Amino acid sequence: MLTKPKILAFAGSTRTDSYNKKLVKIASTGATGAGADVTVIDLRDFPMPIYDGDLEQKDGLPSNVRKLKDLMLTHQGFLISSPEYNSSISAVFKNTIDWASRQSEGEIPLACFKNKVAGIMSASPGGLGGLRGLVHVRSILGNIGVIVMPDQIAIAKAHEAFNEDGTLKDKKQEDQVKKIGANVAKILLKLND
Amino acid sequence: MLTKPKILAFAGSTRTDSYNKKLVKIASTGATGAGADVTVIDLRDFPMPIYDGDLEQKDGLPSNVRKLKDLMLTHQGFLISSPEYNSSISAVFKNTIDWASRQSEGEIPLACFKNKVAGIMSASPGGLGGLRGLVHVRSILGNIGVIVMPDQIAIAKAHEAFNEDGTLKDKKQEDQVKKIGANVAKILLKLND
Amino acid sequence: MLTKPKILAFAGSTRTDSYNKKLVKIASTGATGAGADVTVIDLRDFPMPIYDGDLEQKDGLPSNVRKLKDLMLTHQGFLISSPEYNSSISAVFKNTIDWASRQSEGEIPLACFKNKVAGIMSASPGGLGGLRGLVHVRSILGNIGVIVMPDQIAIAKAHEAFNEDGTLKDKKQEDQVKKIGANVAKILLKLND
Amino acid sequence: MLTKPKILAFAGSTRTDSYNKKLVKIASTGATGAGADVTVIDLRDFPMPIYDGDLEQKDGLPSNVRKLKDLMLTHQGFLISSPEYNSSISAVFKNTIDWASRQSEGEIPLACFKNKVAGIMSASPGGLGGLRGLVHVRSILGNIGVIVMPDQIAIAKAHEAFNEDGTLKDKKQEDQVKKIGANVAKILLKLND
Repeated sequence: MLTKPKILAFAGSTRTDSYNKKLVKIASTGATGAGADVTVIDLRDFPMPIYDGDLEQKDGLPSNVRKLKDLMLTHQGFLISSPEYNSSISAVFKNTIDWASRQSEGEIPLACFKNKVAGIMSASPGGLGGLRGLVHVRSILGNIGVIVMPDQIAIAKAHEAFNEDGTLKDKKQEDQVKKIGANVAKILLKLND
Repeated sequence: MLTKPKILAFAGSTRTDSYNKKLVKIASTGATGAGADVTVIDLRDFPMPIYDGDLEQKDGLPSNVRKLKDLMLTHQGFLISSPEYNSSISAVFKNTIDWASRQSEGEIPLACFKNKVAGIMSASPGGLGGLRGLVHVRSILGNIGVIVMPDQIAIAKAHEAFNEDGTLKDKKQEDQVKKIGANVAKILLKLND
Repeated sequence: MLTKPKILAFAGSTRTDSYNKKLVKIASTGATGAGADVTVIDLRDFPMPIYDGDLEQKDGLPSNVRKLKDLMLTHQGFLISSPEYNSSISAVFKNTIDWASRQSEGEIPLACFKNKVAGIMSASPGGLGGLRGLVHVRSILGNIGVIVMPDQIAIAKAHEAFNEDGTLKDKKQEDQVKKIGANVAKILLKLND
Repeated sequence: MLTKPKILAFAGSTRTDSYNKKLVKIASTGATGAGADVTVIDLRDFPMPIYDGDLEQKDGLPSNVRKLKDLMLTHQGFLISSPEYNSSISAVFKNTIDWASRQSEGEIPLACFKNKVAGIMSASPGGLGGLRGLVHVRSILGNIGVIVMPDQIAIAKAHEAFNEDGTLKDKKQEDQVKKIGANVAKILLKLND
């Protein structure tokens, strides 16, 4: 293909010092290294009301939803690091999905998600690293048309896992995370050929 | 027991004409009939920001979270009708759980949820009635300490299912929904004995 | 109640030195201590063919299925320690469920499971202790009518976790496992009152 | 690529008149039409004991497991039609996975599954067509390294859905099922390029 595959990368958390923001940046360097163009965004820059059908009917899509959908539509892949809240997806990430899944005029259903390729990961202070949350995230993304790559990683004890510069202390883990990014890039290079 | 068991009933949707609001009211009459005191609330009356760790650290629990937690703490059961958005829990319901799960000083962990008994149900315009969403709702509630009763109901084609007065057209379904409420009441009467 | 609640306890593994067999025995002592009558069985003593609809139609229920169903029907609770194979339930446990769920003449549907109370747990040599398997086990049991208690435990690094006498090296873990058994006994004492 | 992608197709049921056997054959024609080489097998021809760690240690892999593993290793894709038993995967399919996941000498872990591409579907006499079972099947396959395509289909009321010749009465459904097969073929053609 003539153009590089484009991957949108973000964390399912808005906290400034979010471990998941750090993690998805590592995966992004892996994707860049494998030939993708990666756009890293922060959901904090796209504040949205909580989805409510009345609100949508009255005012249509909020402007930040429109902006985010436009970004999603121009990217073929996702790298997502999703914290686990109460054994499942975070509200902020689910809310983003719920708004972005609303069909705009002239769009195919689930245009933001259909046939996109995603790599998922998680970081959490607990001993499981957010693994149970990824079960739901994988299930949700798969159900809305995303090809979720089987490899995933859950970084346990995240409060002790990162160096000051944002890299992981465990070099082997760091490589695994980069590989998740690289794999999404590589499969997109083949699929978009 | 001297006092009636108290059940908090709500829908995981804020839309004014929400099918799930109608559904949970039917279940509530079943619980009342079986001897419980039911408080029906509307999550629309408890607007909350989307959970963000920075926000919590800066300002503590928002006042509506505090109000809702106080309500939850004084009830022993839940009746919850949860719409399915993108095959899972709605953002507004997940956000409510994420805030209410935050431990306040002097509270046991997950005090709002631990050992509470819940009956769950769903209504949706689609052919499955929100059944896949209930899989995640059941899993999340179970993981935070709620005893989720095995019987559940998913009302398919919800836009055609209700009478003007909010009852279900299908009398058998109406009875099943009431039974879900009654069962939560009955088990609470035994457990709190 | 005049009679003690009866709890059937087993592991979802047939291996002779199964960690899950050890674990469920610990939980059983907790249940006995709390006033229940516990029957510990070994699925190895109930060998069954893999469920096949043709087989059932031709020969009816195999005799070991019939024996196990009869046992299940006379118990009100379950203690189940289920190993995780490939992130889910073991084939031997799923096969047991599939046969036991077949409706015999004169029985209500799912008579072996409906409204039974279960405590679930898992042990595994891996770092997660079988936690992902319990997600599926909880979901399956809930869907066939079992009230699955929210508390569960997953013993990681199971090959290092047990003493020679079958107790757990970590006294706190041992107590947690016993408590799972005790809780099932206690809730049954209330429910059957 | 010089050689056609090879896809192994089977049903998670051994019953002679299994709806899932019919369904997977339809998907297979879709895959063949899109340029794949499809091998349709019947799990009935690979009878295996229920997985037991002692058995494996004593006798190694049963010969049918070895045969099936060899088949899997020479195919890059799967088409699987999996019946829903008790809201989850069938014992016979789970048992097949559990045996095939055992690592033989010289093999990479999960060699039979890693990076394979799968299309999944289900047929069932019930109103949901086996949809809840597919939730577990998708989760299990994803966790052992399979890229599960997002599109899936669940044929409800399967006892009324098929013509005598094994095609589906509903032409649109028939096309959807074929498309699931075709999509696996197409993605393999790109990935193996």
